[in-house]
Amino acid sequence: MLVVSLMRLGDEELALREQFPDVTFQFYKYPGELPLEIQKEMDVLISYHGAVDGAFIDAAPNLKWIAWYATGINSLPLKKLQERNILLTNGKGVHAQQLSEWLFAFILDDYKQLKTAYSEQKQKIYNHKRIGNTLEDTTILFLGTGVIPQRAAQIAKVFGMKTIGLNTSGHSVENFDETYAIDERKTVLKQADIVVNVLPETKYTQGLLEVTDFEAMKDDALFINLGRGSVVSTETLVHVLEKKYIRAAYLDVFEEEPLKPDSPLYTLDNVVLTSHITGNGASNKIKATNIFKRNLSVFLNETKLIENEVDLNKGY
Amino acid sequence: MLVVSLMRLGDEELALREQFPDVTFQFYKYPGELPLEIQKEMDVLISYHGAVDGAFIDAAPNLKWIAWYATGINSLPLKKLQERNILLTNGKGVHAQQLSEWLFAFILDDYKQLKTAYSEQKQKIYNHKRIGNTLEDTTILFLGTGVIPQRAAQIAKVFGMKTIGLNTSGHSVENFDETYAIDERKTVLKQADIVVNVLPETKYTQGLLEVTDFEAMKDDALFINLGRGSVVSTETLVHVLEKKYIRAAYLDVFEEEPLKPDSPLYTLDNVVLTSHITGNGASNKIKATNIFKRNLSVFLNETKLIENEVDLNKGY
Repeated sequence: MLVVSLMRLGDEELALREQFPDVTFQFYKYPGELPLEIQKEMDVLISYHGAVDGAFIDAAPNLKWIAWYATGINSLPLKKLQERNILLTNGKGVHAQQLSEWLFAFILDDYKQLKTAYSEQKQKIYNHKRIGNTLEDTTILFLGTGVIPQRAAQIAKVFGMKTIGLNTSGHSVENFDETYAIDERKTVLKQADIVVNVLPETKYTQGLLEVTDFEAMKDDALFINLGRGSVVSTETLVHVLEKKYIRAAYLDVFEEEPLKPDSPLYTLDNVVLTSHITGNGASNKIKATNIFKRNLSVFLNETKLIENEVDLNKGY
Repeated sequence: MLVVSLMRLGDEELALREQFPDVTFQFYKYPGELPLEIQKEMDVLISYHGAVDGAFIDAAPNLKWIAWYATGINSLPLKKLQERNILLTNGKGVHAQQLSEWLFAFILDDYKQLKTAYSEQKQKIYNHKRIGNTLEDTTILFLGTGVIPQRAAQIAKVFGMKTIGLNTSGHSVENFDETYAIDERKTVLKQADIVVNVLPETKYTQGLLEVTDFEAMKDDALFINLGRGSVVSTETLVHVLEKKYIRAAYLDVFEEEPLKPDSPLYTLDNVVLTSHITGNGASNKIKATNIFKRNLSVFLNETKLIENEVDLNKGY
């Protein structure tokens, strides 16, 4: 059994070799370092690199399982994986803590007007009268009720917020006070002070949010996108933020990434932009490798996986 | 029974009059509006204004109870209240939510380097590699284990942090994984990634934190003061921040308030300063009035109080 990783895994490399002495591991810093003969032979691939496309899969005829260390798998040639019966696991859950922390960093930055605080400090202004907004008794609505929004909703509950979750069928999910079907969202969006997109990219979610969705939100709603940029076009975002259909937005993901310096989003004064970083975390590789180890233990005997397997039909 | 408030209470004024038809209420916008004859007659005073000093109390010979709407009571002439047997209640608990929200706004601002994010946005830099620090598995230490730190520690636990609390005797308190006596702090401070002061001002806490306390902390510790500025001198703070005994500080309270524009704190690059605002909240008056109502119901019959009574010996 040959396992190839298209990134170095630090201390985890030795740990893997020790736990699985009968498995051959090859770790490369970049996809470009991978020799063609190794690519041909490998059984299992660890990566989350954009280089893993249709041609890459074609050159790996022995590949049986891709352990994708990111959560979003939209860059992979899913149809080809399905045809080839290649199993796919993702990093679901690995980024839940990081994304939840960033979410509250964004919310508190906005609710406490930290930029105003910096500016007052810079100008040596002592303004004792300032009252920040409070999270208590506000309503936060999540598009998506998977592992990440569940974790975020757990934190929101402790802050005293009401949590609403939208998913395909409207089924109940832990940590959400109320859940509704995404298709019914127009009637629910107007309840929310904060709307957070954490949906994965699928055929269904591409361009899901339209101008009318933002019209349905409160005038002072905050929109935060930590999921995938494809859920709403840049054109729509610029329009609704310019027209102030909502108060402000925090965006970490974009229709086109990397965001180009000439993006019209840079011209708005009611948006905070980060660079698809809210999932980054120093311990992500360790967490994802722990999932990989549990899967590999089973896979060695049964060619099946027990954790984080992606349904190639659904796309998540 | 005459109850005087040195601030307007909005809708709460009517609510008080309706709930207590036999009590006379007088509401003034500023202490200066209070007629001397009313001051002479009043039985109960609602305020948190600095004008309530020894002379003010002397001019109110009939005063039996001060309902102080702030938590810190250090500006009041406590000895005189004791001599006169004037009861004192404070706003303990009213500010717990606000302070906890600000605490996490500060921590996440620092851990996620939001200033860097703003600066990148301004320069149209798309830096996908940036990894923020994570709260998970860090240790937060609170000087004080009262209502405010208990609420903050509850939130810290949900973020996956370890919580340590310091109080007079080291007794256990809910939401703290470990508690120690303040006098033993030198051995505990070095465990903390984040040190938060929430102690009230008393004789004991004035100047409590000295240079050696900051030397005992981790080099990359974050110090946050939301309690009272008197716990550490400005001189000490400037020294330890200049010498980088700790990484950075977020300060909302100061030895001398308001902070003057020539304060040396303004010259430091590893400090964030706010203007004693972390307790401010739009719903504070309502919350404090709810406590007042419960106390007044009892006080009308028994001249005793059931909630938030301050021990004038301890000073909190």
